[in-house]
Formats: sequence, C-alpha cells, structure tokens
Amino acid sequence: MQNSFLNTINSPKELRLLKQEDLPILAKELREFIINIVATKEGHLGASLGVVELTIALHYVFNTPDDQLIWDVGHQAYGHKILTGRKDDFHTNRQIGGISGFPKREESIYDAFGVGHASTSISAALGMAIASKLKGETEKQHIAVIGDASIAGGMAFEGLNHAGVTDANLLVILNDNAIGIDPSVGALKQYLTNVKKGTQKRNNIIKALNFDYSGPIDGHDIAKIISELERLKSIKGPKFLHIITTKGKGLKQAEEDQVKYHAPGKFNASTGDLISKSPSEFTKYQDVFGYTIVELAKQNKNIVGITPAMPTGSSLKYMMDDMPERAFDVGIAEQHAVTLAAGMTTQGLIPFCNIYSTFLQRAFDQIIHDVALQKLPVIFCLDRAGLVGEDGATHHGVYDLSYLRCIPNLIIFAPRNEVELRNIMYTAQLGLEQPIAIRYPRGKGVTTHWKQPFFKMDIGKGIQLKAGKNLAILSIGNMANNVSEAILNLDVSHYDMRFVKPLDELLLHTIFEKYSTIITVEDNSIKGGFGSAVLEFAAEHNYKNTIKTLGIPDKFIEHGKVSELQKLIGLDVESLINYFGKYARVRD
Amino acid sequence: MQNSFLNTINSPKELRLLKQEDLPILAKELREFIINIVATKEGHLGASLGVVELTIALHYVFNTPDDQLIWDVGHQAYGHKILTGRKDDFHTNRQIGGISGFPKREESIYDAFGVGHASTSISAALGMAIASKLKGETEKQHIAVIGDASIAGGMAFEGLNHAGVTDANLLVILNDNAIGIDPSVGALKQYLTNVKKGTQKRNNIIKALNFDYSGPIDGHDIAKIISELERLKSIKGPKFLHIITTKGKGLKQAEEDQVKYHAPGKFNASTGDLISKSPSEFTKYQDVFGYTIVELAKQNKNIVGITPAMPTGSSLKYMMDDMPERAFDVGIAEQHAVTLAAGMTTQGLIPFCNIYSTFLQRAFDQIIHDVALQKLPVIFCLDRAGLVGEDGATHHGVYDLSYLRCIPNLIIFAPRNEVELRNIMYTAQLGLEQPIAIRYPRGKGVTTHWKQPFFKMDIGKGIQLKAGKNLAILSIGNMANNVSEAILNLDVSHYDMRFVKPLDELLLHTIFEKYSTIITVEDNSIKGGFGSAVLEFAAEHNYKNTIKTLGIPDKFIEHGKVSELQKLIGLDVESLINYFGKYARVRD
Repeated sequence: MQNSFLNTINSPKELRLLKQEDLPILAKELREFIINIVATKEGHLGASLGVVELTIALHYVFNTPDDQLIWDVGHQAYGHKILTGRKDDFHTNRQIGGISGFPKREESIYDAFGVGHASTSISAALGMAIASKLKGETEKQHIAVIGDASIAGGMAFEGLNHAGVTDANLLVILNDNAIGIDPSVGALKQYLTNVKKGTQKRNNIIKALNFDYSGPIDGHDIAKIISELERLKSIKGPKFLHIITTKGKGLKQAEEDQVKYHAPGKFNASTGDLISKSPSEFTKYQDVFGYTIVELAKQNKNIVGITPAMPTGSSLKYMMDDMPERAFDVGIAEQHAVTLAAGMTTQGLIPFCNIYSTFLQRAFDQIIHDVALQKLPVIFCLDRAGLVGEDGATHHGVYDLSYLRCIPNLIIFAPRNEVELRNIMYTAQLGLEQPIAIRYPRGKGVTTHWKQPFFKMDIGKGIQLKAGKNLAILSIGNMANNVSEAILNLDVSHYDMRFVKPLDELLLHTIFEKYSTIITVEDNSIKGGFGSAVLEFAAEHNYKNTIKTLGIPDKFIEHGKVSELQKLIGLDVESLINYFGKYARVRD
Repeated sequence: MQNSFLNTINSPKELRLLKQEDLPILAKELREFIINIVATKEGHLGASLGVVELTIALHYVFNTPDDQLIWDVGHQAYGHKILTGRKDDFHTNRQIGGISGFPKREESIYDAFGVGHASTSISAALGMAIASKLKGETEKQHIAVIGDASIAGGMAFEGLNHAGVTDANLLVILNDNAIGIDPSVGALKQYLTNVKKGTQKRNNIIKALNFDYSGPIDGHDIAKIISELERLKSIKGPKFLHIITTKGKGLKQAEEDQVKYHAPGKFNASTGDLISKSPSEFTKYQDVFGYTIVELAKQNKNIVGITPAMPTGSSLKYMMDDMPERAFDVGIAEQHAVTLAAGMTTQGLIPFCNIYSTFLQRAFDQIIHDVALQKLPVIFCLDRAGLVGEDGATHHGVYDLSYLRCIPNLIIFAPRNEVELRNIMYTAQLGLEQPIAIRYPRGKGVTTHWKQPFFKMDIGKGIQLKAGKNLAILSIGNMANNVSEAILNLDVSHYDMRFVKPLDELLLHTIFEKYSTIITVEDNSIKGGFGSAVLEFAAEHNYKNTIKTLGIPDKFIEHGKVSELQKLIGLDVESLINYFGKYARVRD
C-alpha cells in the first residue's frame, strides 16, 4: 500500500471521489508523506500534522477552489498544498525557485489568500464573503481556519467584531491546539481551556459576538468533522466551529515536544529523532540577545523583557526561565507589546521589547504615537532584520530602516557582530533618554569570542574598519561582513556607520571631504533606507560626491537561502567585489 | 453662585476637601465652564460633557497623580484638565502655544500617558500596573477609561487578553455611550446594548476574560460611581467597571445631535445653537471624496467604500446614506479595514478604503503583507495628510510618504486640488492592477468649479505648472498652492510631480538636465519622503545638481492653525518666497 489513495489525488476533485470510510487511510498516507519530505527537506512540521483530518474534510465537503479557504499564518497548509496539485513539487518546499512554505495566490488557485503573518484570515474571508453577497453568489462558502494563538491577535478580534453584525456567509474554524510556535498565553487561551474542560459554560465569547457557535469537537475524528461541516454549510451568516487538535499529531516526538517540532530541521522519518546539525563555532544573534538580557537584568533590577509570542524564536525564553516575573510573553499582540513597554518606562522600568523586524510593522503607529512622541526610552530589539531566507517575502525584515527613520526622537542602530549587539544592549540600559531600535539578523553571528566585558558605546558614532584610497564604502550592521570580505584585495576605505539615526555627521564630513565616490551597503530597501539617509546628509551639506546606494531593490524578494537571495540581488561577496571593483578602478 | 466650588479647585487636593453632597453642584459648574469656553474657543465638546461626573468621582476617590489615570483617545479629558490645574489656561485649548486638546505628559503630572489615537489606554495602564507590582507599590491604582468605540479596537482586546492573566492592579472603566465620533458599530456594540437592555445575561465577555466585572451603572449618578469606585479600590487584580453615560450630557442639542456636537465649532453657550460659519466658496477635500465616490459608484457597480469609524470625518457618510449595502463603517479597526478591502479585491470588487493618514499607521503591516505583496488593487484614500492643525502632534499625517514609499507595487499620488482628486479616483476605479494610495489634506480645497467631467490621468506623470529660468521647484500635492503663490514674482520653473511613486523619471531627466538647482517641497517628513525619492533618482543617474528638500523637519510638530504651523517650519508662502529668492538670486 504505497500511498494508494494519495497517489490518485491531483486535486480535490479526485479526493471527493473517495468513499468517506477511506478518508482515515488517506489521512494516514498524507501524514506519512508530510513526515517523509519534511524529515529531509526541513520546514514546518507540527502545525500541518495537526490538521490533516481537517484539511481532508474541508476539501471533501467544500467545493474548493470556488469556495474560498484561507489558512491563517499558513504553517499548517502543507496537507492543503499536497492535496491541491502540489504533491510532486512538495519536495521543493521553501527552496529557491520551489513552492512557498505558505499559501500564496500566485502559486495556486486553491490558495485564496496569501498568508504568513498571523490573524489576517477572518478579515480577508469576510471581505470575500461580503463580495459574494453583493454579487449574488449565495451558495459560495468562505472559510477561515485560525489557531488559538492567532485568534488572540487584535486584528482577528476586529474581524470577528465586524463579521458578527453582517449576514455574510462566513465560517470561522478555530483550530485549538493550545499552541502557536510557543504555547498560547492570555485570558482567551485560559477561557478556551475552560471550555474544553467543561468548566466554562456560561460566558461564551463567540456567541456574545453573534456567531452561530458549535463545538468543541475532536479535530482528529474525520467523520465528525465532515458531518459538522455539512451541517454548517447550509446555515447562512457567520458561523464558528471550535475543533480540538494535537499539534504534531501522528509523530510521537512531535506531539511530546511541540515547540521543538514546530520546525524541527532534519529528522529521522521512521523514529522521529532529530538529526543534530554539525556544531557551529558561532552563536545565533538571538541567543546573544537572550544570554545578554539575563546577564544585564541580574545587574539592573529595572530591566524587563517583552516578546509577542516568540519566546523561543527571540531567545527571551532564557529570561522567562530565569526570572519569570520580569519577562513577559504577551501573545500575538505586537501593538500591545509596544504600548505596554511604553507604560512601563513611565514608572522607571527599562523594557527590552523584542519583536521581529517584519512583525514590528504591526506596531508602527504605537512606536510613533505611544513611544517616540513621548520620548519614552523603550529598547526595541528587532530580530530577523534583513533577509530571513526560507520564510520568504512575508517575513523578510527589509523595511525597518525606512519606516523607522522618519520617526523623530528614535535612535536606530545595527550591530555588525555579536560584541556590538551586547555593547549596545549594555549602553541602552544605562539610561537613554529616548527610545532606541536595535536591528540584527536571523541566524548565526561571526565572532567566536563574543562574550567580552561590556563597553559603553557612543551614541551616533561610526567607526572606520579599513583605510584605503579609492573610495569609501559605508555599511550598516551585518552587511559589514560581506563588505569586509569583498574588499580584501581592494584599496578602499570601509566604515561601519553603526547608527542610521542619528548619523555620525562628523565622520560623514570627513568622508565626504576625502572621497569623491561613496557607496552605501545595507540589507534594507534602498527606498528610504540607510543610503537615503546618506543622500539627505549630502544634499543638506551641498556635497556633490558620487553616491551609490546598494540594498534591497524595490520589489518583493522570494524565499531561498540567504546566500542565494543575496546573490540574486547583488549583495553577496562576489557581486560586491565586482561592483566595488568597477568604481575602484575608475579612481586608479 | 459664580462657580463657587470650581473656583476653589486648583488641583484634586481641593476637590477632595469638598463634601460628597456638594459634588453634583460642582458637576454643574464644571459642565457650564466647559460649555462656556468651548462655545467661543471651539474644541471637542460632547465627550467631556458625558464624563463630568466620572471625572470628579475619579479624582475624588483616587489619589491622583500618584494613582495613574489614563483617558483613552482623550477627547473626554477637558474636565480632567480643568480640575488638575489647567482651569485658567483652558481658554488656550488647542491654540498654538496653548494647552493641548489631549492629555499630554509634558503638560501635567496628572496626564499619566499621552493619548490621541484610540485603544491604547489598557496597554499603557497595564504596563504601569505591572511596573508598580514589580516595584512593590501595592497600593498604587492604575485606571484606564475607555469608550465603547475604542474598546472594540483590536489593540484594546490585546490589552484585555494580557491583563486577564495577570494579577496587576488595573481598573478598566468602560464609558459606554454607544458612540465614538460617529455611532459605534460592531458585534461588541450590539452585545453592550443587549447588556444594557438586560437581554444579554448569559455570555459575559469581560468575565470570560477573567476580569472582575461590575455594572452597568448610571455614569451620571455621582454617588453611585463613588461608592462603586471605593469598593473596587480594595479589590486586587484586573477589574472592569461598566458605566452608561450620555454623550453631550447637560446640553440639550449636544445630547440630541451627538455627531454634530462632538466638535461643534462655535455655538451659543446659553441656547446651544451653532453659530454658522461664514460660507466658503470652497469645498472640503473630504466632501470631494464623498460626493465623487457616490458619483463613481453609480456608474461602476463593483465600487465599495470602507471607513474605520470615520463616516462623518471622511464623508463616506454620503455613500452610506445613498447605497448602504456598499459602504462599510467597520469601527475603529484600521487593520481589519485594510485586509477586508484586500479580500474584496480578490472577488473583483473595487474598494476605496478611506483612512486618515495618521491612522493608516495602524495598518502598515496589512498594506505590505495583505495588499502590496499580492498586488491587490485596493484604492487607499488618505484624508488628513500633512499638517492637520489643532489636533496637533498625535494627528499630523506627515509620515505617510516615508512609510509607504518603501512598499513595492504601491502607487502613491497626491492631488494638488479637487479636480485632481476626482480624476485620480476616476482613474483608479477604471482597473488598476496594483494598489494606490491617494493622500490629500484636511480642510478646504482651492478651486471653485471642481465638479468637472472626469479625465483619465496617466499614472506616473507629473506636470509643469510654470516655466522659468533660475531653478526648478518640484512640489507634491497640496503644497503646489503655497509654491505657486510664492513664485508669482520669481523667474523659476514649477512642477507638480503628482506621483511620489512611480516617479516621472522622464520628466525628472528633463528637469535635471535643464536646471542646476532643484528644490523639492512637501508636507511630509524630510526623512524618507518625496524629497528623498528625488535624491535617490539623482544618485542613481549620477546627477550632481544642487538639490534642496523642504518639508516637515525631523521633530514632532505641536498644535495650532495650519498656517501658523507652516510658518513655524518655513512652509508658509512668505518663508518660501524668502527661501526660493535666495536660490533664484544665486542663479542671476
């Protein structure tokens, strides 16, 4: 029985030809297929294993792609991809040129809406449902599948609040497994736990919001789901189905260590055992953050840590374990995280608010309105800044320098290595009188002995890394390392400007007076980023130097290894060598 | 009895010396004081009248400023300002150099947290409450007062969700008057209505989120509020008090027409009658939007309109009245509004999503992730772009060009007059294949006969408004009008570039080849705005022209008349004349 059912399915049409009693076997096959591929190709595992039955049931009952199915976040959509024509491409998942790790409209008509960030599905599905209603498509179904971590995001509540007063044909399915990437938190999670235990009977939040609520039901009982979906299909207006699933279902280790098996890397498909990576001499930037905040917090009792649902990804987990009363996982709630931090500063606390660059986009208004306008010294740590690799277009942190640079009162810093990250963290908690954003990349650092004694940094001061004749290269953050490698054989100067704001104007004057050609290098958009800051400086001071700005071009960058993506856009070492060489030669 | 009690009160200390039975008289005095001043000085009226009793009770019971009191949005804080030392300055409210229309930390120790945008108070107060707990300040109270429109914002839900699993000493007071600026909407509003009617007894959302809930009680019964606050003061952990008030309470017309009397302009303090302004020959930009969308929607059945809680302010009200099934007020939910619009476009609708520039900051991530990344043709209309005047620093829309410009696939346009606003709206609904942001200012237009036949615009094309020798001035949007006036006697060229993205590169090449000096003028931040786009163009094409960028400097701009603020920062006609003259002379 080599995938006897799964092999016949190239689209949901074939799925719908199966007898219902065969579906549990298909579920088993689908689960094995996912496990076998992810075991060698890597990717997100646990979420998709948890919704195998739901995925089959949805495509069995509903008339996809005419009926619109939206997976919130999309970590759980592997089964969906495999059943909707991408079985044979699934081994290319998250690889450059391969299929995306998330549902994506360009990729398939079955991907009704692109996802990646949490809590968007209800709004998008409601928009579709309202559109169908206006167009008189009364039979069309619109389904949002959302997890218990994502439904706690404010945006999801906004969607529910609107949907509840419409008669749109919307079905929200809550996939309640009590975990996002890390275990879910918050009052809503506790409420859901009580619902499951049967101790919360009186106060039904969903019913109070005018939804036709049903559940909770067992999300691994495929017959039960199908019968419930069939029933709901005929009910008009906003409906809500609460199902209980187990993340990692079907792989013992994944069920037992749900955090680790969210995206476990390579593992043995038969045993489930993780295949340990060859040890690296380098530490992840996130761990440098995680170890350092604990170290600093032990010396400074006012320090607190905040993460919106990323304890593991940000490594704030270390502080949460060590001093739980001072480290806060607030759930998927970036807006709240930022203003919570602002409130804390007014009482003398020193919050390190750690949010991935791409997710801080969710709290842009709060940074301006609640933090910067009041000059409150929140310390923002932006992990995953720059290109993030396999997560792709939804997750690259390549806009932060542009969207933060227009905010008055805000300091913006990017460390080029682990030591600088430590030292800016140290410096920031000594008592800044304004907020600071520290942006650093995903993945490993570049220094073996990064745990050196703290050193106070001068705010707004850059540094010369190499002296040379032909031209000056100004880099920011992590890009310094590609630049350093690229100029090994070139007679050029290299400066790490460190601060995008305030710029080191003194240093810039020296540079502009000495070099006729200046090249800026960053892993942020060239629209409005660090390079633009240098252009603004030059215009203000009437410099006529030749200035070239290298960075992320003005288009969305897809998924792939960071090195591959850098090569695509000319930011890898080889491309830089060629580019610099052109200008260096001009000056010889 | 000329304000016999109110006159004695310079701070809450004096208030607390009064006998409780005298407080209703004080309430009457405070109400009259607010009415008398707002009647002649203008400002927000209804919200503050509605919370006179609550304001007195809060300062009477709690030990402000040690106890922390946060007013969500802050429209309702006039009574608070008057009772906390700003009675004598209250006549300077919202004027340049005067007190702010919103609570503001710089202004008073009683303003625990600056506000302006909605739904922030719970997060900020919780941050303070957690800080107090960590510092061992067990008696300290932290109070967030939030309206029923604001509590529906997603961020407020995020705050409640976190607070419910803490033991922080937080009191959330829901000021339920069933209206924000326009009547509240949404399932939560309906739920609250049912609670008031007594028809919603089973499903208490607030209790489900672990709060100690009490209410609803009459928010104009001062004795009742005081006794309830006294009781709650001794209860630890998160508490929730639901009070019912009437917006505009105490002024008949304000109670009866709550939308108009939110900020009624000048009125007769005795009769309440509005004093009509001298009629203007010009129409507000918002009305040009409002009339035009109705006109277009009658021709194009796919057009829909979306506003997050600003039907009156955006003038989408006209469409809501005319074709209610196609115009949506989604409440204070900018994030949801944007992704709802994105969902609609996937089904062939053409949504005009109208959000004030400053509030679109709330949906920055959704514009990137849900709209631009998928190239969905949402038409964003950004009202109140540029300086907004008396609402001040929290409301100026001076960052949009910077934060939008880094987003791939997005068209950015700014009309210089009403005709251009109409024509771009017309052009956009003809079938763009990507999203567009149209940003226009608060207040009146500049053309008397703006209702002209529609004309299709060329995307990405600028226009020369005046030809001259000395230099080229490039303006964007509304600033064209100040520039035109300023150059009446100067021999300079003036271009309205219209599109910040894509730039009219053909036109720019012509300009850069012809003029050695180029000055850009915009009412957006000079960091990353239109001027920076021109600098990036010049750098890319190796132009060495002198480029000067005029715009909003890199600091927060306070409140005052737009003309006064323009003067402060050198963007008024006179400053522009001086500035241009300097460069024009250089070239003679």
